[in-house]
Formats: sequence, structure tokens, C-alpha cells
Amino acid sequence: MSEAPITSHATVEEPKQVYTLAIDAMGGDRAPDIVLAGLELAADRHPRARVLLIGDEALLRRSMMAYPKAASICDIRHAVASISMDMKPTSALRVRGSSLRVAMESVATGEAQGVVSAGNSGAMLALAKIIIRTLPGISRPAMAAVQPSGRGDVVMLDLGANIACDARNLVEFAVMGEAFAQAALGLSKPTIGLLNVGSEELKGDERLRQAAERLREGVLAEQFHGFVEGHDITAGTTDVVVTDGFTGNIALKTGEGALKLAFGLLKRVFQTNMITRLGYLLVRPGLERMREWIDPRRYNGALFVGLAGIVVKSHGGADGEGFASAIDVAMDAVEHKLNEKIRHRLDQLGMLNDEPVKSAAPSDAVADAQPVG
Amino acid sequence: MSEAPITSHATVEEPKQVYTLAIDAMGGDRAPDIVLAGLELAADRHPRARVLLIGDEALLRRSMMAYPKAASICDIRHAVASISMDMKPTSALRVRGSSLRVAMESVATGEAQGVVSAGNSGAMLALAKIIIRTLPGISRPAMAAVQPSGRGDVVMLDLGANIACDARNLVEFAVMGEAFAQAALGLSKPTIGLLNVGSEELKGDERLRQAAERLREGVLAEQFHGFVEGHDITAGTTDVVVTDGFTGNIALKTGEGALKLAFGLLKRVFQTNMITRLGYLLVRPGLERMREWIDPRRYNGALFVGLAGIVVKSHGGADGEGFASAIDVAMDAVEHKLNEKIRHRLDQLGMLNDEPVKSAAPSDAVADAQPVG
Repeated sequence: MSEAPITSHATVEEPKQVYTLAIDAMGGDRAPDIVLAGLELAADRHPRARVLLIGDEALLRRSMMAYPKAASICDIRHAVASISMDMKPTSALRVRGSSLRVAMESVATGEAQGVVSAGNSGAMLALAKIIIRTLPGISRPAMAAVQPSGRGDVVMLDLGANIACDARNLVEFAVMGEAFAQAALGLSKPTIGLLNVGSEELKGDERLRQAAERLREGVLAEQFHGFVEGHDITAGTTDVVVTDGFTGNIALKTGEGALKLAFGLLKRVFQTNMITRLGYLLVRPGLERMREWIDPRRYNGALFVGLAGIVVKSHGGADGEGFASAIDVAMDAVEHKLNEKIRHRLDQLGMLNDEPVKSAAPSDAVADAQPVG
Repeated sequence: MSEAPITSHATVEEPKQVYTLAIDAMGGDRAPDIVLAGLELAADRHPRARVLLIGDEALLRRSMMAYPKAASICDIRHAVASISMDMKPTSALRVRGSSLRVAMESVATGEAQGVVSAGNSGAMLALAKIIIRTLPGISRPAMAAVQPSGRGDVVMLDLGANIACDARNLVEFAVMGEAFAQAALGLSKPTIGLLNVGSEELKGDERLRQAAERLREGVLAEQFHGFVEGHDITAGTTDVVVTDGFTGNIALKTGEGALKLAFGLLKRVFQTNMITRLGYLLVRPGLERMREWIDPRRYNGALFVGLAGIVVKSHGGADGEGFASAIDVAMDAVEHKLNEKIRHRLDQLGMLNDEPVKSAAPSDAVADAQPVG
């Protein structure tokens, strides 16, 4: 008896589904190198991923020699142009054949399931809305990301895609945040909080009270925790924190700034004299774990959620490790069928077939949500 | 020749001006004890202060025995009622003879120059608007406080008095923030930033762009830094950060929450094992200075600015040290003639005599700006 049948049995197994990400090789401050460094890490982490790498073909072929694992999962597609970091969204829309546009188009045609770019946020959102389009039942895509808290990771949205939001938008964000928390944090029933200036029912404005009422009444009632406050984000009171893009963007950056302040002060304390330097050596391993715990690279990758495809924005100044985290976000969303979850929830809430007011033309006023490197 | 003439000369000097603060002895979680403990400290720090201490006279006479310095600067005035921490502002307005109302009335009559209370924020603002009234040229009072940053202290407003604000309100906040920074931080020309989701001129909404335009054109042009972002608050990019009460309240609490998260993680690091505990002992003095640097007690005392009298809110859970800081805020504002500075600036900006739209009736939706103890 040989072992052939067993081997044979293994090979006839249902082949695992392969997913394709369209990756903009030209976006970000140090493209394409950090993109390739990120793909080198991602190749190990995501055996089911294929990559359509979009950019200047000659440059990419040359650069890729140093990244053999990246090369093994990538097909290069040439793009004749790229969008600069400071180009206005309205101008970016007029650039033909940009790497970002080609990436979006590959999702629109179904060739790829998601896009990752470290490029211009405003241009990304504008192109995505026009080429990939929003999901049925969603009036406005939002920007969502995972943040550290004292009780584990927390999903926050909107982080800057929409400056002003109404009650309907906030309910949509809750639905999208739930699905993202399921995909990215692996939670089956994530709890949801609505960011406000107090936790009592009568706090805030009409828009917030209406959104809360709708969440209390629908299928999300059990998971809806009510209003949460700024300190609840880092306390991890709920798994998802919902807010408008103006407040979310400012809360995100204020929290990052405060952590930076704490670490800056701590550094001064350790550098005071010989004794404090010795103290530092004694706690260094723990401090390094702590720094890793709140490492912005680990949290890199904001999802533009609510589009008919997965669109992930990496910080423009990310390194390879950071870019690999953004790829993780995209793969989590693709593999967990994020958009199907959103569709299902909207259907349950009766929001799938009514016609939401579509968002206005792409605005140049959109926030860049990830300023702290 | 005796030294009499010199002594005599000294005694005929212009007597230093004495200021009176009306202090609500019944507000806060542990009133009146923390109020008296705070006054005990304040008596040393503010030789020019007299205090009208308002509350249950019998209780105060008894409690005051343990606080001789406080007793030396206080006149007790009986109040038949007090406002509970959870009473709605609209209900609080109907309570006759509350300690908070009597305090406000003593400012309205000119008997006192300022009020300090650790009581109900919403009730304070509602009573102050009705009894003390807003300053001419100011449409809405705001809540302002001093925050720590990497470059020194920063004044932030509005922290929750106004959920929605227009361009005019934001310009008023800039004027009030400047005067508060002069009084509290001793700066002659504090720089001013307008909180937004990006620093470019076209970011944000129309309201922000209009406010920025007005600040760029007027007498504050030189001090106006333009738009700042969330991380600029703790970076200390400007001395004053102006925003609406919704965003300001959330930014304040998010920053506090992030600092709390950092200290929580740090504590875990130091408690890991014997070696890390030794490490802690080596850096303890520096850590204590660091904790003191960002100690919420040191930053206690939010000013309701824009009223025709000084009104300071202490955190409800403050201890004596914290309450003394709130008294410092009130005395700084009184001694530096904060309201005269505001009046002068509004005049220069041509905002003194036009009729701003007065704020709506007291709302129960007002934020409690100081949740983190």
C-alpha cells in the first residue's frame, strides 16, 4: 500500500478561495519601497492573497528584485500617472490612468476585491465613490479604524470622511462599524456606543437623540450601549464608537497627541540622570511591550467603509510594517465578507431599499485622518 | 530722628484692592468639606481675597472649626436650599434661595466679583445667564479651561456650554480665550488656533472658514495661527484652542482618557516583577513630577467666560487641592480684569455694539465638561 491515495485525497479538497487586492504602488511618502516591504510581510501572513500591483512598471520590476516574497504574489500592472499627496480631490478625479484610478477600476470590474493605498485620502474617497460606488442603502461611506483601549481594540468611525452627519448617517455608521468590528476584531456581537458630551439620554443634539432612538428600537438594540463620552474610547467601554467625521477626526488626533505627550514626558523622566537611566534598563522589556501595544503601525489601515468594494487607506508615512497592517485590514474585510454583513443588517433594519440622500460631490474639505506618524 | 515717618509713609500707601468671591459651599460630591479645605489653602495664596461662603449656616459654622485660615477670610451667608448634582437646569432655575442662586445674586448686585462652585454645571450656566447675564457683545458664554501640553499650558474653549456654534460664536470664543490666556497664563499676546480636521485653509465647513477669515482680518490677525488639529492641543502649537462645545468636550475627555490609558499601561509595566518594581523606585521622583505636571487637580477650575461676572466651575469630585485651583482661576480672572480685556477687544473688532443673537433658553442638554477625576 502506498500513501498515494491520502496525498490524492488532499489534493482533491475544495481549493481555498483566493482573493485579489489591487495595491497602489505609487501612494505614500516613500513609495514604492514601503509598499513592497509591506507586501513582503503580507505574503507570509496571507497565503490566500494575490496582488495586482499598480504603478510605474519599469520602476516596480527593478525595485521588486529586493522583495522575492512580494514578487511571488504580485502581478504588475502599469499605470501612466500617479496622484500626488497634496492634489485636491476634484483635480485628482481628472487625472487619467493614475495608479489609484486603475486600482479602483479593478475593483469595479470585479477583478480585485479590495484596494490598498498610502496615497491621498481625499482623492481615494472621491475616486472610490465615483468608480466603486456606495453600497445600496448607504448614503455616505465613512472612514473607520481600529484604536487601542485599556480593554482591547475598539473600532471608531467616522474619522473624517464626512464633516457633517445626520441621524441616518450615524445609524449607517453603527451598522458599518459593527460589521468592521466583526471582521477586524473577530467579535460576534460587538457593542456599539454613540459619542456624545454626556451619557444621559437627553444630552447632545436632536440628531444624536434621533440616531440613538433608532438604534434602541431596531435589531441592534441589544448591542447598543447608548451614549459614550470621549474617555470611553480609550477605556474601551464599547467595541464600536460612532460619531461624525469632524468630531471623530479630532478625537482620534487628540488621543494620539495625548499618548505622544505622555511618552514624551516619560522619556524626559528616564533621561534625567544615571539612576533613572538604570531604572529604564530595568523596565525596558515591559516598556517595549507597552509601546508595541499602542504602536501606530499596528493600527495602521483605515477602511473607507460603505463602498461596494473594500478600500483601505494606509498612513502616507507608514513603513513596511505599517503598510502590512493596512493589508491585514483589507484581507480581514474581504475574507469576512464585510459588505455582505452590512447588506444583511441594513435589510433587517429596513434601510436597504429606501432611497437615502446621496452624498454631495466630492469635497476638497475632507479630512486627512492619520497625521501622527 | 525716629523711623516713624517711614512707617507712616508705608501705612498711608494706597491700600491694595480687596476682591470678594461668592463661594457655593454646598456644591460637589463632598461639600462642604472639600470647599473648606480648598479655602484653607486659598487663604494663604490670595491675601487680597475675601469670601462670601454660602450654604447651610449651622453646618458651615460647625465644619469651619477645623479650618481656621478659611474662617479668617469667610463671611457665612445662609442659604435655605441647594441644587443637587443631577437636577435638570430648568428645574434648578425654579429652586428659591439655593446656595448657587444666592452666589450668583451676590455677583449681580456687585457685592462679589466672582462665583466658584463644584456643583451642577448645567444649573450654574443657566442661573448665571439669567442672574449675572452675558457681557455686551457676547452672544453665548463658553466654558474654558487650562490644559497641559508639551510646550506649557494651553487654554481651550468651548468645553461644552454650546453644542452647536456659528462663525460669530467662534470669533467671540477667540476673544474670550485670548483674555483668559492673558489672565491665567500671564501671556501678553497669546497665539490662537481654530480646531479643525486639517490645517489647510479649505478644510472643514463654512462656519470654520468664515470664523478664520474674520480672525485673519481683525486686530487678532497677528496672534491668529489659523487652523490647528487634535494633536496640536497637547503639542501646544497655540496658547489658545478655539472650538465648539461638542467637539471641545469630546476632545477634552478623549485627551484625558488617553493619558489615563498611558498611565494605566505604565503601572502594569512597573508592577510586572521584582526587577521592574526596583526600576520604579529609581525613577519615582521624576514620575511624581510628571504626574504632578498633568495632575487634573492642578487644572481644575473651568471658567464660564462671557458673563458679566467671573463664574468658575470646579470638578464635582475635586478634593481641597483641586478646589483651591478653581479659586486660583477665579482670582486670576478677577485680578486681571478679564472682562475689561474682553470688552476692549470686542470694541476693537467692532463687535461690541452690534446686537448678537442671544442664546436660546437654558438647555438640559449642556455637557458636563469634567468627568475624569
